[in-house]
Amino acid sequence: MTLTPDLLQQHHQFQQKVAAYSLALATMSWDAYTIAPKAGGPYRNRMMAYLQGELFSITTAPEAIERIEVMSTQSYDPITDREIKQMKKELDKARYIPKDIYVAFSELVHNANDIWEQAKATSDYALFKPVLQQLIDQTKVLVSYRNDTRPVYDQLLDDFETGMTMADYDRFFDKLRSDLVPVIKKIKDKMVQKPEWLDRKVPVDVQAKVVDLLAKHLDYSKDTGAISVSVHPFSQDFSARDNRVTVRYLEDQFTSSIFALIHEVGHATYNGQVDVAYDGRYIRKSMTYGMHESQSRFFENMIGRSKAFWLPIYAEVQGLVDALKDVSLDEFIAGINFVEPSLIRIEADELTYPLHVMVRYEIEKGLFDGTLSAENLDQVWADKMEAYLGIRPQTAAMGVLQDVHWSGAAFGYFPTYALGSAYSAQWMHALRKDLDVEATLIANDFKAIKAWLADKIHRHGGVYEPAELLLQVTGEPFNPQYYVDYLVDKATTLYQL
Amino acid sequence: MTLTPDLLQQHHQFQQKVAAYSLALATMSWDAYTIAPKAGGPYRNRMMAYLQGELFSITTAPEAIERIEVMSTQSYDPITDREIKQMKKELDKARYIPKDIYVAFSELVHNANDIWEQAKATSDYALFKPVLQQLIDQTKVLVSYRNDTRPVYDQLLDDFETGMTMADYDRFFDKLRSDLVPVIKKIKDKMVQKPEWLDRKVPVDVQAKVVDLLAKHLDYSKDTGAISVSVHPFSQDFSARDNRVTVRYLEDQFTSSIFALIHEVGHATYNGQVDVAYDGRYIRKSMTYGMHESQSRFFENMIGRSKAFWLPIYAEVQGLVDALKDVSLDEFIAGINFVEPSLIRIEADELTYPLHVMVRYEIEKGLFDGTLSAENLDQVWADKMEAYLGIRPQTAAMGVLQDVHWSGAAFGYFPTYALGSAYSAQWMHALRKDLDVEATLIANDFKAIKAWLADKIHRHGGVYEPAELLLQVTGEPFNPQYYVDYLVDKATTLYQL
Repeated sequence: MTLTPDLLQQHHQFQQKVAAYSLALATMSWDAYTIAPKAGGPYRNRMMAYLQGELFSITTAPEAIERIEVMSTQSYDPITDREIKQMKKELDKARYIPKDIYVAFSELVHNANDIWEQAKATSDYALFKPVLQQLIDQTKVLVSYRNDTRPVYDQLLDDFETGMTMADYDRFFDKLRSDLVPVIKKIKDKMVQKPEWLDRKVPVDVQAKVVDLLAKHLDYSKDTGAISVSVHPFSQDFSARDNRVTVRYLEDQFTSSIFALIHEVGHATYNGQVDVAYDGRYIRKSMTYGMHESQSRFFENMIGRSKAFWLPIYAEVQGLVDALKDVSLDEFIAGINFVEPSLIRIEADELTYPLHVMVRYEIEKGLFDGTLSAENLDQVWADKMEAYLGIRPQTAAMGVLQDVHWSGAAFGYFPTYALGSAYSAQWMHALRKDLDVEATLIANDFKAIKAWLADKIHRHGGVYEPAELLLQVTGEPFNPQYYVDYLVDKATTLYQL
Repeated sequence: MTLTPDLLQQHHQFQQKVAAYSLALATMSWDAYTIAPKAGGPYRNRMMAYLQGELFSITTAPEAIERIEVMSTQSYDPITDREIKQMKKELDKARYIPKDIYVAFSELVHNANDIWEQAKATSDYALFKPVLQQLIDQTKVLVSYRNDTRPVYDQLLDDFETGMTMADYDRFFDKLRSDLVPVIKKIKDKMVQKPEWLDRKVPVDVQAKVVDLLAKHLDYSKDTGAISVSVHPFSQDFSARDNRVTVRYLEDQFTSSIFALIHEVGHATYNGQVDVAYDGRYIRKSMTYGMHESQSRFFENMIGRSKAFWLPIYAEVQGLVDALKDVSLDEFIAGINFVEPSLIRIEADELTYPLHVMVRYEIEKGLFDGTLSAENLDQVWADKMEAYLGIRPQTAAMGVLQDVHWSGAAFGYFPTYALGSAYSAQWMHALRKDLDVEATLIANDFKAIKAWLADKIHRHGGVYEPAELLLQVTGEPFNPQYYVDYLVDKATTLYQL
């Protein structure tokens, strides 16, 4: 490729190429997590790593580097300028990594996921430990190829949420701990019993019907999506008109699939409402993890755990679920908001949830400042759970092995869950200025809320950094007070504190 | 790439690259047919066509051509020599095609499938007609880039079944027609009524349980496979340890899913039993379509429609299917072998089946010698069905739109269905010399038959041409008499002719 004046056209052709490889890899990943038989894993992982290597070669080719560098000194339209800036940042992270190291790391990650699944199924941390240590070590190796002097974990945090550092998260988690722990303590002292109906068995096919009903209620269509089953619920973006989700069905914990669905539909709706003009472009996929979580947690909690949301559909749900026949709407709402320190993050109530994230954040900090390693991490995990939540996992499956993220080397991802939850409260505060949220939900008009999200947030894709968008939409910088207020108010009302 | 002495190593690296792209495309294709939402189709199709273009560039790169040409003048091990010969044949078909024409054709094919699905659902031939004509025209264009003076349709026939020509198929179909039509006439004259239980409704979830039971009985494991649902049943090879199938469930025609499953598991078992040493190599995937169909039809008919196969499991099936409670095993066997001219090929009985294929073969011949076009093909189809089978489809969905193949530009594929059926009778004749097939099935030991197929046929992958393998395994060249004898004997017994 020669650098002709028509850089912009080359830039778009380049993005089309990247998009084609990305879609192939996204499809293979979705396939691997949903339907692919386990025995085909090693071969598939090798082939996926090969293709990731091809994509790596494409994005770090000398002419690609030269084009981005030239373009980043020039000005096009505002969207392209932003896109080039983001692409240059990504490129600078990758360009000095030797391809063989990159490909070996990709294959390690794929195989690590298969090993994690097996380790989790048998609750065998010893099986996962060596590969986890490799993932940590190799992540450090990859980061060492960046020309970046910041601490490794600060770099990783910035990868997942632009602009965030350990100092920011320390402050954020300190506030959450000091404001929330006393409330959790007060609730514990009230000795409210967990409603027994939460543990009633609901057959998988009935849960699937509820999931379909909720999807419809949230305006999530199978014409542009799909609902599959996986070990760990996730959403996958294929393109503007193809955004899919997964759930998992636990027969003796039927609310799990309900909130997994609502959460993942939040992600899918975000991806599905990005301006179609950005299809196939980098800017379409560069939303941060915290921003994404702010949408999924908004759906799951702000909407999905509110009485107004359930009011118009609860009778229909009761018609499907025998276990809810004798449960009133108010009892149902109290149950799905029941606060109790528990072991599994994705099943945790809203109030204790950020403490689960804090456990992971502190461990990750330790793994990258050298004070912790994979050795004994199951015990470190259990100790922290005991210290912050007052309960201790008796198995690794209920502890350190519960989440998929580390098997994917996604270190620095977890804190965005708490941060996104906090963003979501700030969005809600802004939404309330424009819309009577309760009345809208009771009128069964979720589409109006979806439209507000599209207009204010979704359509922009990854054009704005989180701090910019927060300011633009809510009129102020990130303010965790909304989150704390929301949590404390809700708990105070529900538990009459 | 420079042509160093180490051509063999380069050859294997090249195959690894091809395998990676092929697996990506196979996964995207499986995904598109099974779970992907329709609205994502146009974007996905464009991206898939792009990747097919990438693969095209890889396989037709000057250094790839040079290497194959040099290697084809040398001798390595017998497997590699065979592989090089096959790859050279493929290369010679593709090398002179301009890439843009190839990519446009790929995208046309993907979009044609989506249009076909829509046309079939609404029984609207006019919707499919223009794209079908494009597919025919563009297939002719692609073939015109080969340095091959044979008639276009002879070339296409050879693509799907090495060595076969119109002259061969004319002879083959003439024999089938002259030997089978009188038998069909005799059966028709007996006026035997179709058993009413064949039309009883069986819920989809019950059918799915029967499908699972049959899969287990055929030693088809979800550890190395998967069973999904699609509009048109198919099997997809991913790798030696990942071979999947689809079925479709028709509530008022429950035997459809049964035989789709058995048929597709035949394909999957073939792919799954190829020598693992060939994983990622061309020779693993170069079995001909006729050879493949000989396995699926062997499973479906020779095994799946035999009394010995059902004897050990029929009681269990009856336990699942209410509609079979009052149907004896003998009545069941008579029903699944009921002979009656019908409209849908994949639901046809064994005796009329080859006539369905003949209709398609004659139409394809006409499309490529210029005596037919897409114009009025729905009527041509209906006329031929009436002439050969005595019944006329009243809708395009029941006629010309029923099969997926033409939407994929797979012209020349259909005849291999009849040919494969004929091969399968020759395999059965050979198997009987080594094994008491009925006793083995009654003893519930299908694994013994599977092992015989692995040893004689499957493990070789695409190493041998069909004619070679037939000679090697059965001791004689292809002989359609076994097929005719099998069909006539079976009909004579069942209908007491």
